[in-house]
This record gives sequence, structure tokens and C-alpha cells, in this order.
Amino acid sequence: FLCSRSAAIHLAHIQDFPSSSDASLIVDSPILYCLRCAHTSWWPARAGHLPSWYTRAGARTFGVCLGAGPLGPYIPLKWIRHLPLDTHHATMLTRRVAGPAQQVGLAIWARAAGTLAPPRNTEFALLQDSDLAVFDSILGSGGVITDPHEVDPYNRDWMGKYRGRGRCVLRPRSTAQVSALLRHCSARRLAVVPQGGNTGLVGGSVPVHDEVVLSTGLMTTLLGFDPGSGALTAQAGAVLATLEAAARERGHAMPLDLGASGSCAIGGNVATNAGGIRLLRHGPLHGSVLGLEVVLAGGQVLDLLSSLRKDNTGYDLKQLFIGSEGTLGVITAVAIQCPAASPATSLAYLAVPSFKAAQQVLQAARQNLGELLSAFEFLDRESLEVAKQFLPGARDPLPGSDAPFFLVVEIAGSSEQHNAAMLEAFLESTMGEGRVLDGVVAQDSRQAGEIWALREGITEALRHRGAIYKYDLSFRVEEMYGVVGAARERLASAYPSGFLGGGAGSTAGSDTEHALKVVGYGHLGDGNVHLNISAPRYDAGLEALIEPWVYEFTAAHSGSISAEHGLGRMKAPCIGYSKPPEAVRLMRSIKAAFDPQGILNPYKVLPPE
Amino acid sequence: FLCSRSAAIHLAHIQDFPSSSDASLIVDSPILYCLRCAHTSWWPARAGHLPSWYTRAGARTFGVCLGAGPLGPYIPLKWIRHLPLDTHHATMLTRRVAGPAQQVGLAIWARAAGTLAPPRNTEFALLQDSDLAVFDSILGSGGVITDPHEVDPYNRDWMGKYRGRGRCVLRPRSTAQVSALLRHCSARRLAVVPQGGNTGLVGGSVPVHDEVVLSTGLMTTLLGFDPGSGALTAQAGAVLATLEAAARERGHAMPLDLGASGSCAIGGNVATNAGGIRLLRHGPLHGSVLGLEVVLAGGQVLDLLSSLRKDNTGYDLKQLFIGSEGTLGVITAVAIQCPAASPATSLAYLAVPSFKAAQQVLQAARQNLGELLSAFEFLDRESLEVAKQFLPGARDPLPGSDAPFFLVVEIAGSSEQHNAAMLEAFLESTMGEGRVLDGVVAQDSRQAGEIWALREGITEALRHRGAIYKYDLSFRVEEMYGVVGAARERLASAYPSGFLGGGAGSTAGSDTEHALKVVGYGHLGDGNVHLNISAPRYDAGLEALIEPWVYEFTAAHSGSISAEHGLGRMKAPCIGYSKPPEAVRLMRSIKAAFDPQGILNPYKVLPPE
Ligand SMILES: Cc1cc2nc3c(=O)[nH]c(=O)nc-3n(C[C@H](O)[C@H](O)[C@H](O)COP(=O)(O)OP(=O)(O)OC[C@H]3O[C@@H](n4cnc5c(N)ncnc54)[C@H](O)[C@@H]3O)c2cc1C
Ligand SMILES: Cc1cc2nc3c(=O)[nH]c(=O)nc-3n(C[C@H](O)[C@H](O)[C@H](O)COP(=O)(O)OP(=O)(O)OC[C@H]3O[C@@H](n4cnc5c(N)ncnc54)[C@H](O)[C@@H]3O)c2cc1C
Repeated sequence: FLCSRSAAIHLAHIQDFPSSSDASLIVDSPILYCLRCAHTSWWPARAGHLPSWYTRAGARTFGVCLGAGPLGPYIPLKWIRHLPLDTHHATMLTRRVAGPAQQVGLAIWARAAGTLAPPRNTEFALLQDSDLAVFDSILGSGGVITDPHEVDPYNRDWMGKYRGRGRCVLRPRSTAQVSALLRHCSARRLAVVPQGGNTGLVGGSVPVHDEVVLSTGLMTTLLGFDPGSGALTAQAGAVLATLEAAARERGHAMPLDLGASGSCAIGGNVATNAGGIRLLRHGPLHGSVLGLEVVLAGGQVLDLLSSLRKDNTGYDLKQLFIGSEGTLGVITAVAIQCPAASPATSLAYLAVPSFKAAQQVLQAARQNLGELLSAFEFLDRESLEVAKQFLPGARDPLPGSDAPFFLVVEIAGSSEQHNAAMLEAFLESTMGEGRVLDGVVAQDSRQAGEIWALREGITEALRHRGAIYKYDLSFRVEEMYGVVGAARERLASAYPSGFLGGGAGSTAGSDTEHALKVVGYGHLGDGNVHLNISAPRYDAGLEALIEPWVYEFTAAHSGSISAEHGLGRMKAPCIGYSKPPEAVRLMRSIKAAFDPQGILNPYKVLPPE
Repeated sequence: FLCSRSAAIHLAHIQDFPSSSDASLIVDSPILYCLRCAHTSWWPARAGHLPSWYTRAGARTFGVCLGAGPLGPYIPLKWIRHLPLDTHHATMLTRRVAGPAQQVGLAIWARAAGTLAPPRNTEFALLQDSDLAVFDSILGSGGVITDPHEVDPYNRDWMGKYRGRGRCVLRPRSTAQVSALLRHCSARRLAVVPQGGNTGLVGGSVPVHDEVVLSTGLMTTLLGFDPGSGALTAQAGAVLATLEAAARERGHAMPLDLGASGSCAIGGNVATNAGGIRLLRHGPLHGSVLGLEVVLAGGQVLDLLSSLRKDNTGYDLKQLFIGSEGTLGVITAVAIQCPAASPATSLAYLAVPSFKAAQQVLQAARQNLGELLSAFEFLDRESLEVAKQFLPGARDPLPGSDAPFFLVVEIAGSSEQHNAAMLEAFLESTMGEGRVLDGVVAQDSRQAGEIWALREGITEALRHRGAIYKYDLSFRVEEMYGVVGAARERLASAYPSGFLGGGAGSTAGSDTEHALKVVGYGHLGDGNVHLNISAPRYDAGLEALIEPWVYEFTAAHSGSISAEHGLGRMKAPCIGYSKPPEAVRLMRSIKAAFDPQGILNPYKVLPPE
């Protein structure tokens, strides 16, 4: 294997390829970087350099997404190709690694449907009994879980897509305990995954290999509430819905809400920079988090737990932890600005004839409902159908409608009457203009709750249906639904029957519950679409058909490949679709400054170097 | 000079002390750090180590504020002392530097009223004619200013408190030009100060020594506006008021507004994380800035100019530039979320009997005006008086009132009638409860404009009155006014006549225009008070009386020493009052990663190491 300008290739990071021949394997990100001449090239693209296994590749097709290298993970879109490769040849590839020449570095990032992982970083220590003894001494009884059955749920993600092999779960109650744990882990170089409610949707919250899980499940104390400002302070493990109830009791509301509120933790929300249905009104967490307490990888406690509304003294470090997905520090406490609760809320569920009409209704709502507007969500007909079928007790608010799109529009204000008058005027005008076909206004909080349950239950319903490929994308509002149609077309031509195609283990049949289904829903007001591809099982061929195509499509339309869920494990190698190499370089230097040994949530967010 | 545990002292960084004996000198931040035993101690606090000049000190008193050292700038409050010192002894101190032993590093940070600067970093190159030739070739005619008269205003800050000695001003028009300029400056190691509208209030926007000024004054293009989302994109030099007008034309509004809007630039606003009167409604810039384009110190263009509402792909680097005051990169373009403009605005100016009543009115406004509330400002009687006296055309909206505090309450909504009804009900109830003594509601936009001009003109009025010591502090709302009273008491006991005390050059007299005056006003809804001490001239003795006392007071009340103006040059050594050493350590590592040579806005934000 030769670089076009230099010498032999060193294949790094692929020691962990599976030898079992039935594992589904996806190899992405091969990019050549010649350490001698600094020339970067895409490997199989140059005929002269095609490795023999490439041309000898078997029948199965695997997705290849170009990625990391010393120049960063940014790869021109035209370089993205599909590369036929099977595990046999991957093994061969692995064998060739042994060569001595290191003049060309080749970063390969392996990922597989469901099970295959990037290689374990062998610099991390293996957990010893002596470590467990130290953990026990720090946490006392009940603080350390090692029973495999009890550990298991902490190793599995919410979708059932990723599964780690962590052997122990740590459950501290205090910041001091988190600090002592991390001091030990960094001294021993044990890798750690922070975990909140484990509702994350990108495989970020569970181990990839044998990382220790540090759960905030016992850190749930409400630390304070300042009625003068609405600043709420809580330990990181406090469940969002619990905090919402606490804020409500005091005449305030949390500035965020999302479908997983009953189980996700505020620390996890901050770590993922969760969006949700209130972002439209209250903005992102970057604007409403007032302070954080964070324990760094080495155990140092970073006290930024101010509850002041304004503080411009130096760089705003807390911002870095918002959305860092557990890779820069463990968040132990959060102070957040809670707006005053609105005494009066009204909700409308509307059927619209097209996505274009949905946008026009959004524009009209922005102009006419202004400060009252508190949520603007959408679902397509396919989402509605999945929810109706798989969500226990789901009710269709407009059972007669055959519209292609539905909107959930919420307004919140200080006067019931004013709300009603504004909403009525708004509905009259949009219906008059033919932009809204039909609609219902919730008559009481039970009805409103049902509508919300439907909208927020789609994620859950999809999980009940089977495997889900979730893509959480943002675009300009005008363009946000295009990707759903494009995905439908792409799958329809690959699977004309609507079912997963041939090959061993396929469940093709005539049962529509097993059909592939593409649905789109999400936060219309924020240009955030959740593209979900529902399938009977996780399948490498299907995945290869979607990825990297969906990222390529998104980048070509100047969108983001992760609007709110983060990159986690799923999209770490793909950051280059949304961020330039210079940005990734700076992110790496920040990671190195905050966590020099890289023990915090390894294999996540940043692509391998 | 001996460390209590180790050897001789090396006095670094004080080569630049003035030799002229009439310069007012303040030396702050001497902290000993023994490089051998890592023992830190405060120097003059230990009798055994008192240097001889300390005991021989003359009549003049100078403020000493402990600060930087390799352990970071955090100093326990009990260590803060006043140290008598005069320039004669400072010169002696300088002479002693020459000793060879380097076992103890002593960082001294010198700062003086008006003129004295921290020492020039001798690692920076001196500007050569050949540099000017390169700048000329990059910018073409009109792009480089070197005429001393034309350069002068770029060297002086808005308050007339700080003055640099920069010899040239660069005025690029494009990002490519900024990149080329910085590539040259970093290759040559020339220090650079980014400058927007030069309205900053902490000495951050002007050179300290001979730094090159890079002005965004010619980068004023509106790059785009997306009506679907309200995302506005502009070059960094665009003036805030111009952008506000552009947004208004399109049915939207900028999410921030402040007294300097007619001259400050959007890039400067972002670089200072400007707050202002709309923060209450629209939150901080961290929530509304969508994207930035930034040129790094080495000339690399960092393209984060997304205008998507949501993008969780990796660490949110743009957040670091918000409030970085030109020390991490030069912002060349900004994308920002503009909310829909409210068709109807109403303004009330209220007299309240006490600060406690002001808080209660705020609470009531939060609960009852809710989503309509768009600004909640306050001024004390003393502020009002300064404004009436020094602001041309200022009108007192309640000329008969002798109340101690006044509030400016704005609501903005979609209906004139609803506004009026809500405001009336609100005023009736707060007046009925005796919390509001008297009030006027603006009858038209001219009256509203007059009230705003009064509130927003206080800063300007103070400038006309003379020298200003500005402290931009935040506290819990309940505690925010305490510092104003405490400052009044402190000054009253030091200057019983109300005038600057004895000593040569004092202007003591009976003219009240020359009296010391302490005023408080600001953003009540955000707990942000502007404590301003107005004096006939900048005076080291007065400054030493206020600083570090005011920072000490603020820290003791868990406040922030800079709510919205930033640290700049004025408060760089004082960051430890609001941020712990671990945070400062991380900030330093970020600075090193983004600007390894430290050429961007040196001597600002971070304390000397
Ligand atoms: C039904 C459903 C609906 C959802 N709806 C939305 C939505 O509308 N908007 C949205 O943005 N997201 C949504 N999500 C995903 C969302 O990311 C999570 O719900 C939530 O924010 C994660 O919180 P968690 O406590 O479960 O974190 P986890 O899943 O436990 O962890 C998520 C990530 O954060 C890290 N982390 C967790 N806690 C800490 C901590 N204390 N310190 C440092 N790192 C930590 C983990 O390492 C991991 O990388 C939804 C998920 C589900 C299941
Ligand atoms: C009358 C008056 C009222 C004010 N009211 C408020 C208020 O209510 N709220 C508030 O927060 N502030 C207020 N300020 C201060 C405020 O900081 C500035 O008005 C404004 O935000 C600074 O913008 P500027 O363009 O003038 O920046 P400058 O003063 O030119 O620069 C300020 C800092 O930003 C840096 N900088 C400027 N442009 C760039 C760039 N493109 N890239 C990188 N760094 C850059 C500079 O190096 C400097 O450190 C007020 C000031 C005045 C004079």
C-alpha cells in the first residue's frame, strides 16, 4: 500500500476487528495522510493504490465514510464512496498492520450495526478487584454495583442499539465522592462513562468496552431556589420532571421540556445541550444555565455554580460543558434560570395540506402570536400512524383527517381570555387562507395532555416498533423536510418490496409491521427534524445505505447532522460533516487540556486521531 | 527578600516602572511563589520578610491587590492589604531586580490611574516600516492609518481613563484581509488589539503599549437575513443601531440594545458578551448568537458562521469567543437570532419609596406581566440628578417627586389594548399596596424615547461630569444595592468634606460639581448594578480607597465583579474575586491553544502569570 507520493502504509487502530465471520462490519474513515509529504488522499479512490482485498471484495456491501486523520476529519463530499468489504478481508487487513514502516498513518474507525466497536484503547487500565475495593471505601455500601444482572441496564442504551461491557457502576451521592472516584480513576487510568437517565439517543451514555459507569442516579437533591430571580440549583442527577414540579410549586417553570422528562436528569440535559419543545420560547441551555459545578477528569472540583444572571469575568467555561456529552468533566450540580410560569396555556392541533403550508402557519404564528408562542411542533402522517399503532392509549385528535402534516401549536400567557382571543383570530385567518385544513383546540388540560402525549410519544412508539435509525437534523426551516422525502425515495429503490432485502437472517415478509418505515417529526420552529428509519432489526446493509448518505445530504444542504442529540458514539466519526478541521483541532486541544489522559467518555464526540 | 521556605527573590516584570517621580503608581498583585517548594505566601504580610522600602514608605498610600502567580490569581480575601509605596521606592525595587537568583518568582502587576501600565512584554516585536509596507500591500490605500492625530482616538478609551501608544491602525474590509494581517502579525510576533466601536468601559479596546489596532470600522456589510427564522448575519463592524434598523424593516428586532448602540459594533458586543436592557426578555448572547466567523491569531479562518438555531456537533466553540474580549480571535462575522418585533410597546416610569419596594415591584411584574415584560431598569436619585445636570435636553418625567429610586418598566406585546389593560391593572395594584409612589405612562413614542434617553444617558452624563470609576457588578437582586450605600459611607469617612482630599494637585473646593458623587443604576431585573464614582479627576488615592475594597465586598456577597462590561485591562488582575484558580488555569490553557504566542489583546482579561 503506497501513498501516491511516499512510502508504505501503517494501519493503526484496527486490532480489534472481529474474527467471527458473521459480525456485521462497517469500516468508515480510511484516509491517508502521508507523514513525510503531508499529502492526504483517499485510499481506494486511486486505482494504483487499491489494496488487493478491495478488488477481491465479496458480495456484501459496507458503508465507508471517510474521516479522521491528522488533518482532521473534514473530507470533501466527493470523496465519499461505498467500499465493498467483508470481515474476512478486514481480518486480512489487520494482519498487514504488522509492517514496520510508519511513514503513512492510516486511521480506520470501525463501527458496526449494534455490536461492533471502535478498538479499545489499550492505554486504559483493566478494572482490578483492588479498584473495586477503593470504590467501596469511597462510596460505602450500595454505592458500587457489580452484579452483572444489575449492571446490564447501565450497559444498554435506550434504543437497544449499543451495548457496552462495563463491569461496574459507581453511584456517588456527593461531589466529594465524585472527586475521590475520579482521582482514583485518573491515577489508575481507568476509563469512565458519566451516565444520567440513560435516555440519550446517540450511544453516548453507555460504555463502548469496559469503561466504568459513573451514574448520577443518587445525586438528586434540590439544592436551592431563589424566588427573587427564579434561579434553581440542583444536583446533576435530579430528574427533569421532578425539577419541573418543584419549579411549578414556586410559580416558575423549567426552561426546557422533552419527551424523556420523566427519566432524564438535568446533568444529562446539560451534558447533551438538550433542546426539546420549549427552546422556541426560552432559547437554548447556553442562555439559561447560570452555573455548573463540574469534577474534572483528575478529580479537581471546578466550582462555577454561580446563580447570578450575569457574570462576564473571563471565558465562560461552563458553556464548554453544555453539550460536551461527558467528555470534558462530570457535571455534579446545575444552576438554571426558571422563567415565571404562565398562568394560562392554550393548545391547538392543526392539520395542514403541505409542508409549505406548515411553514406559512409558523410565520403567521411568529408575527401574530409573538410573545405568546411557546411551542411549535410538527409530525407527518407516517409518524402519526406509528404513534397510533404502538403507543398504548394514543388518541388521534383529528380522526377524520387525511392531511399529510399536523402541527402542535401552544401559546402561554398571563390571561386565559387574551389567549383565547389571540388563538381564535390566528386560526380564523390561517384557515381562511387555506393554510390550515382542520384543527382542534384543547378544551382542558386533559385534552392538551393527550395531544402532547401523542407528539412526545412518537420516539417511544418507534422503539416499540423495532430497530430505529435516528437522525436528528437541522436545516433552514424551508428545507427541513426534504431529507425525509429523499430518504423514502432512496429506500424505496433499494428495497422495492418495502422490506429489508435478502441475505441470511432477513425477516422479509408481507407483514407491514416488518416493513421499513421512514417518518419525520420534530421542532418545526427550530428547523429541527427527527428523521427516523424504523426497521424490524438493526442491519448493516440498511445502515450502509443510509449512512453516510444522510450526512452527505445534510452537509450539502448546510444543515447540522446533530441538532440536539449530540454526536455520542454514533456520530463521532462524522463531525466533519458539520464542523471544519480547524474547529475539530481546537476541540481536541480543549479535550487535551481538560482531560489529558482521555479517560472521560472515550470514543465519543471526537473522531479518532 | 526571602521566601519563608526558600531562597532569594527574582523580581520580574517591573522593568517598565516610571522613573518620573510625579507619576501616580499603583502596584497590585505581589504574590510570592517559591519555585523550589511551591509555597505561596503574601509578601509584606510576614514581618520577617518586609522589604526595607515597605517600612520606609512615604506619605502616599497605594492600593495593593494580590494577584497572579503560577498557582493562579485566586487569593483569600484576608490577604488583601494596603501597602504604602511611592515611585521612589518602586524605582529602588526595580534596581533590586538585577539579582541572579531565580528560585522565587515574583509577579508584580503594575497599574496606575490613567497612565501607568503593566510592563510591556518584550517578546513582542516592535513595529517596523517594513511591517507597514506589508499592511499597505494587504489593505491598499486608506486601509492603514499612521498619522498620529488620526491614530490618537483609537488609542484612547471612551472614558478617557486609558491611553495606549499604538502607532498604526489597520482597517480591513474583508475576512481574507484580516487573515492576511494576522498571518503577518503572528509571523512577526506583533501584538494586536481588535477594536469595534471603542465604547468598551474596561480599557479592553485600546492598546496598553504599542500594540497594533485592528479596527473593524470598515467591515459593516449586512450579509443576510432569513425571514423564515429571523437569523441575521453581518460583518463584525456593523453598528448595532444600523442592524436594529435593518431588523425592524423586516419585522424583527435585535435581541440586545444598550446605551452605546449608535456606535458599538456587533463584533464588539459579542466580544464583550454585552448585556443591556433586553437581556431580561431575550436572554444573554450565549443563547442568541447562532454562529461566528473568527480569525485566529495565526490567521486561520474558523468558520462557525452557521445560522441554524440548533447544532450539537462537538464542543460549542463559538461560546468561547462570546465574552473573550478580543483575546482568543478576531470576530469577523456574526449570525444572530432576531425575535419578531412586538407591534405594541408601553413604557412606565415609576417612583418607589425604597429599594425593597423596587424589588417587590419587580416580583409583581414578573408574575403579572409575565411574557410581556421587556425591560426593568432602575436609577437612584443621585443618578437622576447627574443626568438632569449633564445630559443636554434631559427631562425629569416626574419633576415633583423626591423618591429615592425610579423604575423604567417596559412591556412589549402583540396588542396595544391588551398592553394597556395589563399595565393599568399592574400599576393599580402596586400603587394600592404603596409600593409605587407615583408614575407616568408614556403617551407616545416621543415620551417613551425621552424616558429611555434619560435612563440610557446616565453613562454619558457621568462622562461629562469628570473622571469615573465604574464598577459593573451583579448580585442577588435583594443584595444588589448594598454596595452603593457601602461605597458612600466609605468615601464619606475618607473625605468628610465630600471632596478629594489634600496633596498636591487636589481640586478640593466648595463647588459641588467637583464633589465626589456615588451613583447606582442599572438592570434591576438581572441583579446588575452600575456603581459609579464620579470625581473631578482620576486620582490614585481615591482609587486605592475603592479598589480592591469594592471587589472584596462583591466577592463577600457572592457577586460578580463584572456583570456585563468584562475584565479588559482594568480588572484582569482581579479575576480571582469571581473565578476559582482551577477555572483560571483552564482559561490559560484555552488561551494558549487559541493564541500560542499571546499576540491578541495582551495584558487583558487574564492576570499575568
Ligand atoms: C423519548 C425521548 C425523547 C427525547 N426527546 C428529546 C428532545 O426533545 N430533545 C433533546 O434534545 N433530546 C431528546 N432526547 C434525548 C436527550 O438527549 C435525553 O433525553 C437527555 O437530554 C439526556 O439526559 P440523560 O440524563 O438521560 O443523559 P444520558 O442519556 O444518561 O447521557 C447522555 C450524555 O450525557 C452524558 N452525561 C450524562 N450525565 C452527565 C453528567 N452528570 N456529567 C457529564 N456528562 C453526563 C453521558 O455521558 C452521555 O454522553 C429524547 C430521548 C428520549 C428517550
Ligand atoms: C454609553 C454606554 C452604555 C453602555 N451600556 C452597556 C450596557 O448596557 N450593557 C453592556 O454590556 N455594555 C454596555 N456598554 C459597554 C459595552 O461593552 C460596549 O458598548 C459594547 O458592547 C462594546 O462594543 P464595541 O464595538 O464598542 O467594542 P470595543 O469597545 O471596540 O471593544 C470591546 C472589547 O471587545 C474587543 N473586540 C471588539 N471588536 C472585536 C472583534 N471584532 N473581534 C474580537 N474582539 C473584539 C476589544 O478588543 C475589546 O476588548 C456601554 C458603553 C457605553 C459607552
